[in-house]
Amino acid sequence: MKSPTKSIEWLGSTIRFIDQTRLPLEETTIETDDYRVVAEAIRSLRIRGAPAIGIAAAYGVALAAAGSNASAISALSRDVEDASDELASTRPTAVNLFAALKRMRNVMEKAASAAQARSLLEAEAIAIHREDAEKCRRIGEHGAALVPDPAVILTHCNTGALATGGSGTAQSVITTAARMGKRIRVYAGETRPALQGARLTAWELKRAGIDVTLMTDSTAAAAMRLQHVDLVVVGADRIAANGDTANKIGTYALAVAARHHGIPFYVAAPMTTIDPETASGDQIPIEERSGEEVVQLSGQRIAPSGIRAYAPAFDVTGAGLITAIITEGGVHRPPFDFRARRAG
Amino acid sequence: MKSPTKSIEWLGSTIRFIDQTRLPLEETTIETDDYRVVAEAIRSLRIRGAPAIGIAAAYGVALAAAGSNASAISALSRDVEDASDELASTRPTAVNLFAALKRMRNVMEKAASAAQARSLLEAEAIAIHREDAEKCRRIGEHGAALVPDPAVILTHCNTGALATGGSGTAQSVITTAARMGKRIRVYAGETRPALQGARLTAWELKRAGIDVTLMTDSTAAAAMRLQHVDLVVVGADRIAANGDTANKIGTYALAVAARHHGIPFYVAAPMTTIDPETASGDQIPIEERSGEEVVQLSGQRIAPSGIRAYAPAFDVTGAGLITAIITEGGVHRPPFDFRARRAG
Repeated sequence: MKSPTKSIEWLGSTIRFIDQTRLPLEETTIETDDYRVVAEAIRSLRIRGAPAIGIAAAYGVALAAAGSNASAISALSRDVEDASDELASTRPTAVNLFAALKRMRNVMEKAASAAQARSLLEAEAIAIHREDAEKCRRIGEHGAALVPDPAVILTHCNTGALATGGSGTAQSVITTAARMGKRIRVYAGETRPALQGARLTAWELKRAGIDVTLMTDSTAAAAMRLQHVDLVVVGADRIAANGDTANKIGTYALAVAARHHGIPFYVAAPMTTIDPETASGDQIPIEERSGEEVVQLSGQRIAPSGIRAYAPAFDVTGAGLITAIITEGGVHRPPFDFRARRAG
Repeated sequence: MKSPTKSIEWLGSTIRFIDQTRLPLEETTIETDDYRVVAEAIRSLRIRGAPAIGIAAAYGVALAAAGSNASAISALSRDVEDASDELASTRPTAVNLFAALKRMRNVMEKAASAAQARSLLEAEAIAIHREDAEKCRRIGEHGAALVPDPAVILTHCNTGALATGGSGTAQSVITTAARMGKRIRVYAGETRPALQGARLTAWELKRAGIDVTLMTDSTAAAAMRLQHVDLVVVGADRIAANGDTANKIGTYALAVAARHHGIPFYVAAPMTTIDPETASGDQIPIEERSGEEVVQLSGQRIAPSGIRAYAPAFDVTGAGLITAIITEGGVHRPPFDFRARRAG
């Protein structure tokens, strides 16, 4: 297996990240010391995946502090707050973004001087990044124990190194099981409209030497009926206190089909994805993206002009359809109750 | 409403058809007197939709007879048989193709001379075309009676004038209900990989003045949960004697999701689509198309090179998931038993 992709790297005074919109045709990186470039990259999906968004936003805050001319801590704090607000406005659904920004804000509040703040903010962003890599490792281990040998696994969207600071969430379950020697075959949904499955998951799994077959998203139910799928594992953008899970559009359809076929349906995510303050899925704000992503495919128009599109970026899968939620803390079985848990 | 599109026209000695692969960007027609051009058009989806394939194949046989140099009926019969074999080999799933070719063969057998055969074959192809238009009208009337007012209708693939010799099958239900004055809103799945929903259904419904919203196929389950969908109606490529229905890939996922949400799921098709000789869905041959349709779009690669794709063109929806099958003969409710029925 090739070593995992690094979606985001901290180079001391700049952040370098893969422009995921160019994959798999081009492996292009962007290096910047400007938090606004980071915010734009999150908004335009150059950086995507709930954990990766949180990490990038944390580095964005560190860059904003480093780039601020403020010498007084109060002025620096205002600059950092402005940057944080801009980063928070990029995408509304993934809670990891807000959790990371909250940690950065707490650090800012503890600093006694501007210089100390800059130093602490950089250290905190690096810590968020490193912790995420460790969480990915543990999610992989907890999840891999649930995978039979051999196994046919169905997944959706991209939940690998590109989406996180480490080996991924759902994808870490897959690659960890393979590394343990289990014979794994993966069916990956292409994940319209932005095609993260076709562009990113297929690319990462192939690099990792995993047997991967691509399919259109609507083929998944037929695959469950005909291809002996053993389990479905997906990531999450936000998990409510009751276990309801927001994830990439199409996840709910998979959960419904998995239930119909009696196939286990797992969600794999770091505990930062759990939002104890969101009681249920109905309260999760769902980003509606531009219909242009539906009426175009890879920049080419595929529908008549003037056609309206319904384009929620995420859907909510009710806790009742979820067999287990895999976090770095272990395998959580229903009934889920994350009210007491703290993000972090 | 604009007058419906004519996907196929018989011009006396040539057939003219819309090249559906160019829609909606270009409205291009192809006119030919060569049955091989018709066969190629069916194979490459320029002509598609189960009823339209049957009609085109019938005209193809008439063209082959007209174009043959044979003066003896035995020689003509061989030429016609060769053309019929080539047309039959284009696509394996839609039974209308074989039903139309069978009618043409029966006519050939009745002819007493080559000249009479040529004349009878042309007349039979025209009859198949006209009868299909009449069936579409009656399917629309029977189906529209099942549509509440107002109604939110979810559909898949293209089942309109482009797919048939008349106003369509499932789409005829929609347009007939709208013509009756019912307030109809349609959610159309884009229908990956070939995007018939985005390219054709959106185009036809917009032309017909129907309120249509496009979505990716994997959004359908979420739409059922959030958009008050009243019913799903789709077409069919082959219906087995027990009611199991082969239709465009993604149909089965819709049927499973409709059942989960308690939403009626209707299949609309002419009775030629029913194959009494196929006992159940397991016996329907499912065409597997090239994985290139999944990994590329119009020559543009959307997945890494060397990626394998699973690309069945159709899936089978078990009769148990179907609320009713709407044909020109009426509304058939379960338990379905089409063993006694004759294609024709």
